[in-house]
Amino acid sequence: MRFQLLLTGNEIMSGDTVDSNSSMIAQRLLREGYWIDRKVTVGDDMQELVDEINSISKDSDVLIVNGGLGPTIDDLTAEALAQAAGVELVEHADAKHHVVTWCEGRGFTANQANLKQAILPEGVSLLDNTVGSAVGFALTLNDCLVMCTPGVPSELRAMLDNAVVPMLSTHYPVGHAPQILRYQTFGLGESGAQQMLDDAYPDWPDNIEIGFRAGAPMLEMKLRVDPSCSDEQRDHWEAKFLEVIGSYVVGRDETRLPQAIVQSLTERGQQIALAESCTGGLIASMITSVPGSSVVFEAGIVSYSNAIKQSQLGVSEQTLSQFGAVSEQCVLEMAAGVLAISNADYAVAVSGIAGPDGGTDQKPVGTVWIAWGKKGKLKAREFNYPVNRSMFQTIVSALALDLVRREILELPEEPAYFQRWTRKT
Amino acid sequence: MRFQLLLTGNEIMSGDTVDSNSSMIAQRLLREGYWIDRKVTVGDDMQELVDEINSISKDSDVLIVNGGLGPTIDDLTAEALAQAAGVELVEHADAKHHVVTWCEGRGFTANQANLKQAILPEGVSLLDNTVGSAVGFALTLNDCLVMCTPGVPSELRAMLDNAVVPMLSTHYPVGHAPQILRYQTFGLGESGAQQMLDDAYPDWPDNIEIGFRAGAPMLEMKLRVDPSCSDEQRDHWEAKFLEVIGSYVVGRDETRLPQAIVQSLTERGQQIALAESCTGGLIASMITSVPGSSVVFEAGIVSYSNAIKQSQLGVSEQTLSQFGAVSEQCVLEMAAGVLAISNADYAVAVSGIAGPDGGTDQKPVGTVWIAWGKKGKLKAREFNYPVNRSMFQTIVSALALDLVRREILELPEEPAYFQRWTRKT
Repeated sequence: MRFQLLLTGNEIMSGDTVDSNSSMIAQRLLREGYWIDRKVTVGDDMQELVDEINSISKDSDVLIVNGGLGPTIDDLTAEALAQAAGVELVEHADAKHHVVTWCEGRGFTANQANLKQAILPEGVSLLDNTVGSAVGFALTLNDCLVMCTPGVPSELRAMLDNAVVPMLSTHYPVGHAPQILRYQTFGLGESGAQQMLDDAYPDWPDNIEIGFRAGAPMLEMKLRVDPSCSDEQRDHWEAKFLEVIGSYVVGRDETRLPQAIVQSLTERGQQIALAESCTGGLIASMITSVPGSSVVFEAGIVSYSNAIKQSQLGVSEQTLSQFGAVSEQCVLEMAAGVLAISNADYAVAVSGIAGPDGGTDQKPVGTVWIAWGKKGKLKAREFNYPVNRSMFQTIVSALALDLVRREILELPEEPAYFQRWTRKT
Repeated sequence: MRFQLLLTGNEIMSGDTVDSNSSMIAQRLLREGYWIDRKVTVGDDMQELVDEINSISKDSDVLIVNGGLGPTIDDLTAEALAQAAGVELVEHADAKHHVVTWCEGRGFTANQANLKQAILPEGVSLLDNTVGSAVGFALTLNDCLVMCTPGVPSELRAMLDNAVVPMLSTHYPVGHAPQILRYQTFGLGESGAQQMLDDAYPDWPDNIEIGFRAGAPMLEMKLRVDPSCSDEQRDHWEAKFLEVIGSYVVGRDETRLPQAIVQSLTERGQQIALAESCTGGLIASMITSVPGSSVVFEAGIVSYSNAIKQSQLGVSEQTLSQFGAVSEQCVLEMAAGVLAISNADYAVAVSGIAGPDGGTDQKPVGTVWIAWGKKGKLKAREFNYPVNRSMFQTIVSALALDLVRREILELPEEPAYFQRWTRKT
């Protein structure tokens, strides 16, 4: 069974609008077990639309067209489908009733432009729009079910539930959808993770596909479990998978580092405080992006100047003059300092050189010292991540959070990135 | 001239990832005067890719392929292009050198998977990747220039500037591209800005098109100047444009609020300090994202708990008990407090209710007090922006920066959002 999408809109082609509708359609259909094979996007151009509807319908079982149902002159979908199918455009009584009622409900009378939305190709079935004025419509063309849906996301969402999925499941009862297990990991690259799994399990089964989605600084890993796989098989291989990369797994589904930290601290009734230099508040902002973080987050000091490191965090003048702000001694004093002024259980302190300026031979751009841990049991380590400023701040913030995550969870294993992200001298 | 895009990735087809790359490509090329006519997206499937490359290249002058350059087995672009072009996959010395050097720079040795990225179709030209390990590559097939680019957005962005646009402008010099003047604005909506311009200049010329791109919290406005427009005409109407919306213009091109603040403070030799509660470090992190910000940014205190507001910022116990943490008195004391512990000229302090919990009848979710200004001349104001937590933090951070921007620049005008974002009681 072959599914395709056809999207239309000049605002998508120009890039003014990022198309999230096709993601919504794909995710909704995937829940029913339908996979979309191909997607074509064109501007508001009649000939392009007619050609695409013709050629895609010859090559698919289902074509979902999205956009171009509105009242304005650049909304061409109805006419394009009529041309492709070789039928007339006619007024549909039910569609007109919907438009008129919808306008009345909003206290005005349907005008010419509104009523255009009831002029549809002859012979279509209507797809109810519970949110907006434009009904959707469907037609079988070249043995392909062509369904035309609105571009307004809220209208599309409702129509998928109320009309598209019910019609699809009548036409194409679903066999079995693949199950997708998702994990957010930190500290592994795609090739490294693949290598670890290949080495440990060369006999990995074909019906559990391992997938990756790189989204620096996290790497999302997925197990796509084919319906041919039994629950026992799935659980067996998931356990193997976690045996290999488990300590790098921050959470399932959408649980990334900030959510994982807030969750684990909340469960333990503990708190964290931060002393940031080169990350400039990014770590604090990541934690406080999580609803409910006020329970676990006490304070963050963004000590950008040396004066503030001394006055607010109690870093000694001698440390700064002897070792500099980017040093083991300094981050340990910063971490101890923020623990002293707060009631937090854990602290993280970060000082490094984000660049582009400020590097030296001894401490090049990309150098960072991180201190983390509990009062009286602080650790510190130097890392080196020579990338652009923005990426450096992103990676270092995630790294700092991962170090404290491992500490909170008392993971014994030393992560591979201890070696990889250390500067070789 | 016909341009097409081909995107590949199961994560896009499944809807796990919303494709923003094609928008980035379209916008970048549009600035050079190139319009993309059609876009096709398929999963990581060799046959689909080969078929698309073949058929699109026969129907286009330029095909930009995006995605599938990575090191893993589902990265198929190089092989698909080789099959489509009927050439061998061979190791490219320059590409290998790039991969090896890139890995070395990160302190590890390139493995098999990394080196796969140097195995490319015979005869391609390389497109330099200044950010990541995978080089891009280009080949002429069926008289169509096929350019393969990486799916990682930061790598794609750099490659568009450094390699794709230069190669395109060599192959297809643009005749008369429209000139696009871009402005980053804060505090206006699309329809509001359009209305202001319509009211002031009903005779706005047709050959200078006003465009918008909403990207909360900023609104990008564009003047698309047709080649038929003389330089004098352009300057005349740009001046009119700025007369109407000038105080809302934060900067040109990519200059958004943090860059504008850092630049104006640097020019004046002044500094800023921050006291953040509900924004949780986001304002500090926005400022410190700007290279060179250490010259103007002294310190930020993320005072999430009341205890820290008292101990670090000197907010009085009485203020907290009498007026609460979200109050005019509290933010004024926070701002005065952070000025007292730093040498900064300007301060901003923010305290509000980001939600989803913590709201009351008197102070519902979305309420925020902001104090800003110079020592001894602090102002404070209440705003209300009842949106979700993440959007609230984003908007409030931008709002706080815009207030201090107006103060630094000594703009006399009161922005329209003083009225719009105030809670009506």
